[in-house]
Amino acid sequence: MKMIDIQNQKDTRNIDIEKVGVKNIKYPLIVLDRARGTQPVNASINMYVNLPRHFKGTHMSRFVEVLNEFQGQISIKTFRSILEKIRHKLHAQSAHMEIEFPYFIEKTAPVSEAKSLMEYRCLFAGENSAEKTDFLVGVTVPVTTVCPCSREISKHGAHNQRGMVNVKVRFNKFFWIEDLIKIVEESASGEVYSLLKRTDEKYVTEKAYENPKFVEDIVRGVAVKLNEDENFVWYSIEAENFESIHNHSAYAYLEKG
Amino acid sequence: MKMIDIQNQKDTRNIDIEKVGVKNIKYPLIVLDRARGTQPVNASINMYVNLPRHFKGTHMSRFVEVLNEFQGQISIKTFRSILEKIRHKLHAQSAHMEIEFPYFIEKTAPVSEAKSLMEYRCLFAGENSAEKTDFLVGVTVPVTTVCPCSREISKHGAHNQRGMVNVKVRFNKFFWIEDLIKIVEESASGEVYSLLKRTDEKYVTEKAYENPKFVEDIVRGVAVKLNEDENFVWYSIEAENFESIHNHSAYAYLEKG
Amino acid sequence: MKMIDIQNQKDTRNIDIEKVGVKNIKYPLIVLDRARGTQPVNASINMYVNLPRHFKGTHMSRFVEVLNEFQGQISIKTFRSILEKIRHKLHAQSAHMEIEFPYFIEKTAPVSEAKSLMEYRCLFAGENSAEKTDFLVGVTVPVTTVCPCSREISKHGAHNQRGMVNVKVRFNKFFWIEDLIKIVEESASGEVYSLLKRTDEKYVTEKAYENPKFVEDIVRGVAVKLNEDENFVWYSIEAENFESIHNHSAYAYLEKG
Amino acid sequence: MKMIDIQNQKDTRNIDIEKVGVKNIKYPLIVLDRARGTQPVNASINMYVNLPRHFKGTHMSRFVEVLNEFQGQISIKTFRSILEKIRHKLHAQSAHMEIEFPYFIEKTAPVSEAKSLMEYRCLFAGENSAEKTDFLVGVTVPVTTVCPCSREISKHGAHNQRGMVNVKVRFNKFFWIEDLIKIVEESASGEVYSLLKRTDEKYVTEKAYENPKFVEDIVRGVAVKLNEDENFVWYSIEAENFESIHNHSAYAYLEKG
Repeated sequence: MKMIDIQNQKDTRNIDIEKVGVKNIKYPLIVLDRARGTQPVNASINMYVNLPRHFKGTHMSRFVEVLNEFQGQISIKTFRSILEKIRHKLHAQSAHMEIEFPYFIEKTAPVSEAKSLMEYRCLFAGENSAEKTDFLVGVTVPVTTVCPCSREISKHGAHNQRGMVNVKVRFNKFFWIEDLIKIVEESASGEVYSLLKRTDEKYVTEKAYENPKFVEDIVRGVAVKLNEDENFVWYSIEAENFESIHNHSAYAYLEKG
Repeated sequence: MKMIDIQNQKDTRNIDIEKVGVKNIKYPLIVLDRARGTQPVNASINMYVNLPRHFKGTHMSRFVEVLNEFQGQISIKTFRSILEKIRHKLHAQSAHMEIEFPYFIEKTAPVSEAKSLMEYRCLFAGENSAEKTDFLVGVTVPVTTVCPCSREISKHGAHNQRGMVNVKVRFNKFFWIEDLIKIVEESASGEVYSLLKRTDEKYVTEKAYENPKFVEDIVRGVAVKLNEDENFVWYSIEAENFESIHNHSAYAYLEKG
Repeated sequence: MKMIDIQNQKDTRNIDIEKVGVKNIKYPLIVLDRARGTQPVNASINMYVNLPRHFKGTHMSRFVEVLNEFQGQISIKTFRSILEKIRHKLHAQSAHMEIEFPYFIEKTAPVSEAKSLMEYRCLFAGENSAEKTDFLVGVTVPVTTVCPCSREISKHGAHNQRGMVNVKVRFNKFFWIEDLIKIVEESASGEVYSLLKRTDEKYVTEKAYENPKFVEDIVRGVAVKLNEDENFVWYSIEAENFESIHNHSAYAYLEKG
Repeated sequence: MKMIDIQNQKDTRNIDIEKVGVKNIKYPLIVLDRARGTQPVNASINMYVNLPRHFKGTHMSRFVEVLNEFQGQISIKTFRSILEKIRHKLHAQSAHMEIEFPYFIEKTAPVSEAKSLMEYRCLFAGENSAEKTDFLVGVTVPVTTVCPCSREISKHGAHNQRGMVNVKVRFNKFFWIEDLIKIVEESASGEVYSLLKRTDEKYVTEKAYENPKFVEDIVRGVAVKLNEDENFVWYSIEAENFESIHNHSAYAYLEKG
C-alpha cells in the first residue's frame, strides 16, 4: 500500500519557517573527557531545520535516525558533520542542533585531598547552512560568592550563597571544557565541591571571605580572562546569585560585542 | 440524543481505586489575610475521590463545578464543607483536595523600616469520609542559615545560604499562617526580605553570624515552639539548605509521633 | 556612622556590563482585564540596568523600591514610565524589565455553555534608553492539536495532544491580550477548556478531528492572521506539541523579519 | 591543630530527628541492564540517617564517602549493604537512601522495526535498621492513552494524550525493571517510541484507538497483572494523563493494601 505523504504536500500560505523539528529528546551519548578519554552522558537534544514556504511539513523521524547514526561520536569535532547530515537528509537549507548534558569532573578537596565528582551542565549548540557554520559551547558552573558590601559594613561575617555562572563561547580551535570551568571557578569567591572534610571547610570558608565578589565582579573577572585568549572570538557571561538574605537572585550579564 | 455514560458502566476487575480525579488545575482564589482581610491568590489544585470496584470511571467535570461554586470562599474554615460537597456530588465515600498557593506578607526591614512584600508557599490538604475528616495546613518559608561548624573552625566568616523550611500541621482550632511563619523565621539564623537597605544588610548579616544553625537546629527549634502550643496536634518539619560550598542540599526532617 | 558605599567605588577592569539587577522577584500585581476592569496576578519579575565600566556595582535595593511604587499600576500603558524611572533612579543609560504572570479568562464551553476559568501565561518585556524604547508582549496558549499525517494514514482515530503556542509581538498601539489569545486558539485544531460536559467533549473531539494541524500549520496560521493587522510590527511564534506517541515534542518557530 | 567537632556536641532540646543528610547529589552510577550487562546513568541521590536527641549534628561528608566507595556497584542486589554501611559509618540506628535515574531501553518500532532508545525514570528507595530492611523499586513510564468516553460519543476521532504511569513495588526476589515497564506499556492504550516511521504511526494510531483507556483502567490493568505475580508483595500505581482537551491532568492512584 502506498501511503500519502502529507508532509510533502504544497503549502500556499507563502510563509517560511525558521526552525521545525524535535525538541527535548532524551538520549545517552558519549562525549570526550580530558581525564578519562570519554564519558557517557544523558543528554537532552533539540534538532531543527528550516522549512521553505512551499512545503507543508517536515519528516520528523529523520532527526532521530541521524542521532542514532552519530550516537557514539558527538563532540566539538563532529558537530558540523552532524549538522550537514541533518541538512542533507531533510533536504533543508539550514540545520540547528542544541545538546545539553551533565558532565562530571573529579575534584580534589583543597586540604584533605579527598576526591569527589562534581556535576557541571554543558551545552553544544550550532547551525549550518551552505553559507556558514556557527557553533558555540556553553557551561554552567556552580560557585560560592561572598558579598563585598555585606563584608565591608558588618562587624563580622558576610552573607554568601551558591551562584551559577553560565558562559557561552564561540572559538576557532578545539579547547577543553575543563579549562573554561577553571576560568569561572577562579573568578568567583570560591569553588564548590561534593566532598569537603572539616579542614577543607575551614579553608574554603576563609578563602571565600578573603575574596568577596559581586555578580558584577564575576562576569568581569571571567571576561578579563577570556579576553586574554584569542581563541575565544565571542562570549556571553551570566552570573546569578541565589542570595542568602533575599528570596530572589542578583544577576549580571555581559557579552563580547 | 441520549449519550452513553461510559463512566457509569460496570467494571469487573474487582479493584477499588483510592484516588481518582483532576490534578494541577490552575485557579484564582480568595484566601483570608490577617492584615488585609482577604488576599487574591493563584492556586494549583488537586481534587480526588475514591472509586469503588464496580464503577468504571469518575465524572471529572464535576470537580471543576464544585471549584467554581466555592471559588471566593476557600479557607481553613470552609475546607471541610467543600470536601463534603465533592463527596456527595461524585457519589463517593471519600474526597481529597490539595491546594497550593503563593501568599504575600508585607515585611518591614529591621533598621530602615522599608516595607516590602515576601512570598511564602502555602498548602491546604484534606480528606473527608463519613467516618473522619482530616485537614492539614503547610507553609514553606525561605530563611538564612549560617553554618555553626564553618563559623567555629574558621578565622573569619562562615558559609551561609538560603534555606527552605516546610512545616505542615494538624490542629484543633483556627490559627493564622502568619504566626506559623513567624515561628519558622525565629528558628533560623535570620529572616529573608525582598527589600533591604545597607543599614539593614549590616543588621541581618551580623545577626545571622551571631546565630548559626544547622538544618538539625532549625527543625528542632521549630518543634520546640510547636510543642508549646497544644493547638498543634501533629506536625512535620523539614529544612533544606542550598549549601553555598556544595552543589547539593543539607536536609533534616522530623515529625510529631 | 557613615557606611562605605562599595558599589560606588571605581572599577579598573574597563569592562561594561549590559545587564545587572534582580531576577525572579515574586510580586503581586494588578493588571488590566477587558472583562472585569482589572485582575490581581502573582508575577515573577526581572529588572536590570546597564553598568558602565568605571563603576564597581549596582544598588540592587532600588529596583524593589521602584516596584513598590508602581505595584498597582503596571500595564502595557505604564511600562515605559517604569523603565524610565528605573533608569533615572539607578543613574543608568539603559533599563530592562521582564514580567511574567498567569492571567485568567472566563471561557464558555461550546455546547453546554458552562463557564470556567482558563490560565494563560503572559509576558511584558521592555528596554529603555535615551535613544529608544522597546517593548514586547507575549502570551503562551495551551491548545489541542490533531496530527494530519496520523489522521490521513489511519483507518480510524488520529494521534492528538496538548500543545503550547507562544507568541510575542511588538506593536504600535494598545491591544487586548484576549484578542491575541483568540488568534492562537483559532489557529489550532481546537481550544482547551477547564470545564467540559459530555456534550462539549463530543463537540471538541469532532471539531479537532476535522481540523488537523501540524506545528508547522499552527505557526503559519497565526502568522497569516498577525500579518493582516498592521498594528503588529514584529512577532515571533513558536508551537510545541507534547506528542502523544513520543516522549519528546514536535516544535516550530518563525518570526517576522 | 585540633578542630572542635561541633556536630558531636550535646543537644539538650530532647528531640529526635527522623532523617538528616544530603539531598539532590548528582552522581554518575553504573546500573544493571538486562540487554547490555550494565548501563552508565546520571543519578540524583538523597542519603539520610536518624539523629538521636543527644547529638547536635550529623557528619554530612561521610555520606559522599560511602557513595564514592560503592559508585560502580549500586543495584537492587547491593542496596542493603550500602544502607548498612551508611548506618555504621554514621553511628546511626537507621539509614535511608533514594536514587533516581533515567534508564534507556532499546525499542523496536512495531512495523518498520526501526530501533531507538527510550528513556524511563527509575527509583531505588530503601531504609535499614537493626530491626528491618525496606526496599522499593519504582519506574515512570510514558504511554499513550485514548479516552473511552470521547471515542464512544464522537462521530470520529477521540481525544488522546501522553500519560505518565508511576509504579512502585516491594518484592521478595530480584526482577528486571524491563519486565515492570512491559506490564505498564501493555496496560495503556499504546506504547510511546522515540522513532516511528509512517507505517508505524498508522499502526500505533489504530491500535490505540481500538484500545481506549481511562486513567482508572490503566491503574487497574497494572494492578491485575501485578496481582498475578506473587513476587510483588506491595505496590502503588499512579497514572496521570496530560489531557489534550484540558490544561490540567486526569489522575488515578491505588495501592495494594
